[in-house]
Amino acid sequence: MAKPVILISNDDGIEADGIKALTKEIRKFAEVIVAAPHTQQSAVGHSITMSNPIRVRKVMLFKDFYGYAVEGTPADSVKLAVHTLLKDRKIDLLISGINQGANTAINIIYSGTVSAATEGTILGIPSIAMSLTSYTYPDFAVAAKFASKLAKIVVKNGLPKGTLLNVNVPASKKIKGVMVTKQGKSSWDDTYEIRLDPGGRRYYWLTGSMLKIDKTKDFDVKAVDEGYISVTPIHYDLTDYSMYENMKTWKL
Amino acid sequence: MAKPVILISNDDGIEADGIKALTKEIRKFAEVIVAAPHTQQSAVGHSITMSNPIRVRKVMLFKDFYGYAVEGTPADSVKLAVHTLLKDRKIDLLISGINQGANTAINIIYSGTVSAATEGTILGIPSIAMSLTSYTYPDFAVAAKFASKLAKIVVKNGLPKGTLLNVNVPASKKIKGVMVTKQGKSSWDDTYEIRLDPGGRRYYWLTGSMLKIDKTKDFDVKAVDEGYISVTPIHYDLTDYSMYENMKTWKL
Repeated sequence: MAKPVILISNDDGIEADGIKALTKEIRKFAEVIVAAPHTQQSAVGHSITMSNPIRVRKVMLFKDFYGYAVEGTPADSVKLAVHTLLKDRKIDLLISGINQGANTAINIIYSGTVSAATEGTILGIPSIAMSLTSYTYPDFAVAAKFASKLAKIVVKNGLPKGTLLNVNVPASKKIKGVMVTKQGKSSWDDTYEIRLDPGGRRYYWLTGSMLKIDKTKDFDVKAVDEGYISVTPIHYDLTDYSMYENMKTWKL
Repeated sequence: MAKPVILISNDDGIEADGIKALTKEIRKFAEVIVAAPHTQQSAVGHSITMSNPIRVRKVMLFKDFYGYAVEGTPADSVKLAVHTLLKDRKIDLLISGINQGANTAINIIYSGTVSAATEGTILGIPSIAMSLTSYTYPDFAVAAKFASKLAKIVVKNGLPKGTLLNVNVPASKKIKGVMVTKQGKSSWDDTYEIRLDPGGRRYYWLTGSMLKIDKTKDFDVKAVDEGYISVTPIHYDLTDYSMYENMKTWKL
């Protein structure tokens, strides 16, 4: 049987350790194409580049493997790869990551990692976003192994049109198991530090921490905190259907 | 009774005609604060700036009115305004727009206009995104009037926690009415033009048009095409609940 064709992208940039660890693992059973932003693109949300041209260059990731560095956002990387670099090829799966830092709860809407997977889904490719819940934990082995396992399942069974999987792996060697979860309700208590530059002019810098309000491990935030790998099925139909029904009585 | 306090932002930048038309209209009944990106920020999605400082400067919008130009994204503008410029003040409503160009169907997830309103919602402020469905139509009067009408309703009745309204107004003087709608399923048939720069190096430029697959005017795309103002209640809980139930049977 022919190997599945898997496109890998991320938002930490093509040189990041996470994408290399993922690529190494997925190459064991698949033909892998890597197309990812040339630089770190965290918190870009679902940006796309329309007003400017985009350039692409080949980058050596391993001795025997080159990836495409795209001068754009995660969504740009996926869109460009699918429409030009891989034009006319069937892509069996897209995996975005492995991100350093959790993409749970409200973070999902700011996430470049999820954005790349969402773009894959929009283009009709079954897609998975992979994150490790730490900015510093250096060991991607557990996350890469789980990505490989989930990839094989999704390549075999597919995903419903418009649905992608958002996976968060605890930064730990001791994983309790896997939970299918919902997007948590936790959000940020963010604020801005006000500072003065050397010329005495004011500037603002975003800071804050997550307010964890989710109490049960059927939510992504709590599942990873309790040591489970969290798998959340998400989609990009943003309609609030209960409000839609309710609003029919409004006089507009 | 005290005037309501209304924060206005956008993604076309603080100098855009749409935000000026909106501000002028809303000032007739409310105290208005404008905080918007200093430059055009279309298709930035829900980007926020974390790795860099942000600066703010005052800009005269009318003879008797100044706004805050934020050197960041639409979401940055709202976050910064709420946390610093308007700190400790109760904000009754946020309106983002009036955008030039439709934010219907898949465009919603790329939209900076919607992103600003989403950020308001995250911060607990009832929020509305306003778009005019043309890049060139210069008359914002109909959209501004409807924004004013809807603003009064929302200030009075509020919105459920986590829900915002995404409004698209046809670029026409002849409006048939108002439809409460769902996010359409239409998407882009995009591709990239491949060009050569003067040095002979290849670059890519995104191009394409929307494939309109929505057939009925309960979807945003079709409603505006038929001459109705479209009001879609949206939220940022991306969980695909039917898939969530379905996945519980997966062996992970």
